[in-house]
Amino acid sequence: MADIARLSINSATIDRRLSLERCVDACVRHAIPAIAPWRHKIHDIGVKQAARVIRDSGLEVSGVCRGGMFTGPDKAARARSLDDNRRAVDEAAALGAHCLVLVVGGLPEGSRDLAGAHDQVRDGIAALLEHARAANVPLAIEPLHPMYAAERACINTLRHANDLCEELGAGLGVAIDVYHLWWDDTLRNEIARAAGRILGYHVCDWLVPTTDLLLDRGMMGDGIIDIRQISGWVAAAGYEGYVEVEIFSAKNWWLRDPEEVLDITCRRFQKHV
Amino acid sequence: MADIARLSINSATIDRRLSLERCVDACVRHAIPAIAPWRHKIHDIGVKQAARVIRDSGLEVSGVCRGGMFTGPDKAARARSLDDNRRAVDEAAALGAHCLVLVVGGLPEGSRDLAGAHDQVRDGIAALLEHARAANVPLAIEPLHPMYAAERACINTLRHANDLCEELGAGLGVAIDVYHLWWDDTLRNEIARAAGRILGYHVCDWLVPTTDLLLDRGMMGDGIIDIRQISGWVAAAGYEGYVEVEIFSAKNWWLRDPEEVLDITCRRFQKHV
Repeated sequence: MADIARLSINSATIDRRLSLERCVDACVRHAIPAIAPWRHKIHDIGVKQAARVIRDSGLEVSGVCRGGMFTGPDKAARARSLDDNRRAVDEAAALGAHCLVLVVGGLPEGSRDLAGAHDQVRDGIAALLEHARAANVPLAIEPLHPMYAAERACINTLRHANDLCEELGAGLGVAIDVYHLWWDDTLRNEIARAAGRILGYHVCDWLVPTTDLLLDRGMMGDGIIDIRQISGWVAAAGYEGYVEVEIFSAKNWWLRDPEEVLDITCRRFQKHV
Repeated sequence: MADIARLSINSATIDRRLSLERCVDACVRHAIPAIAPWRHKIHDIGVKQAARVIRDSGLEVSGVCRGGMFTGPDKAARARSLDDNRRAVDEAAALGAHCLVLVVGGLPEGSRDLAGAHDQVRDGIAALLEHARAANVPLAIEPLHPMYAAERACINTLRHANDLCEELGAGLGVAIDVYHLWWDDTLRNEIARAAGRILGYHVCDWLVPTTDLLLDRGMMGDGIIDIRQISGWVAAAGYEGYVEVEIFSAKNWWLRDPEEVLDITCRRFQKHV
């Protein structure tokens, strides 16, 4: 049974209109020990205020969502992205986050050059790493489901992320999300291979049927992912950090009272993670 | 420039209400040399009549869609599936099809056992192979996009399909569909590895955005897949067979006049494949 002491709530899981302060309060009320805020929620109240609110609450920050989007149509666009990523590193540092999660970017608009996008991602991460190492903020590549390859992230397997980590070295690791990776028959081996660089572990569920590519993720237990099996693999690889619940759900969970969502999240976390 | 002499039309590309006879007529009128019929269209007029219509038209059958769905909740269900697959082999033989395409099946209803589903698929194909070899009908595993892993096919990479082909031996090959596989950074190598067992090559395009998981495929040129690059890899692997256009498109192409769809398909095929 998963222990609530390891639960982190990604701010996107509860009503997206909620301020960071109210997200934090809700987690504290439910004895949830950690949070993973999206940057726009941090920006809404300013980084200093966000850091203060979180510090005062006693919550830990399992990760900041998100850096990345390294691909772009030209050098200027990629330089702007790199600047923004450096700010994201600084924000993660200010919040004492365990890592900055990277959604690496898809094909630049109008491009069909997948190998070129891969190169841009590698170069972008390499360029960001120096700043991240100096700030003591580990960078976590999150491989996304292949259905996001064009628009969000062209790293779609843990194998690819592991390769990149081995190429680029210290300060870089992976965030493993069951939603994105459950289908991969090499997952068990690649999780074992990721031992020592697993920076985050994210859970939700794959619904059958799934009615929307982006906003129809399920609560743990409502779908077909054997989450406990994957949790076992992640534990066997030595990961003992927070387990983040991140559910995008426009037609179900986002419409519900955040208190109810957190109640159910805690129960399902214990039962299915 | 791709040659129309290599074009095959999957019957699902044009108005789904069209009978097989009208599909065949439409292809002949457009000087399209081959067709890939779905089984329900064959059954609508009977296998003998379908074989006669196709033979009289002079069209070749690049493949029959589809066998597979080897996974099931119990032995009885899997035995029924195997029976149906043997009939599919017989139908493909009656039509002189170049192969029977296999959509292997996802998780059995209510199951979260992905490794178990993989075993069922391997056992199902192995059991079908004897009949298929005797009938001289090659079986083509079609790896589907990972977003179909739960409901349609739990083989989602060409690597996995290649592994299975090497394990199970003669009579088994792969159908390579750019829509399902374009995102995979190992695709070039796996296509090279598939040399000698490529039984089909399917094209359409990945739209940005994609609004439906199943029924929003794009016409070649309307999306972000570098189809010509993949065609080059397939050619380098020695494949000289038909190139099948298979577009599921509930809100666009299925609503248009089949004549218009075929006109545009032929032009786009020459330009983008």
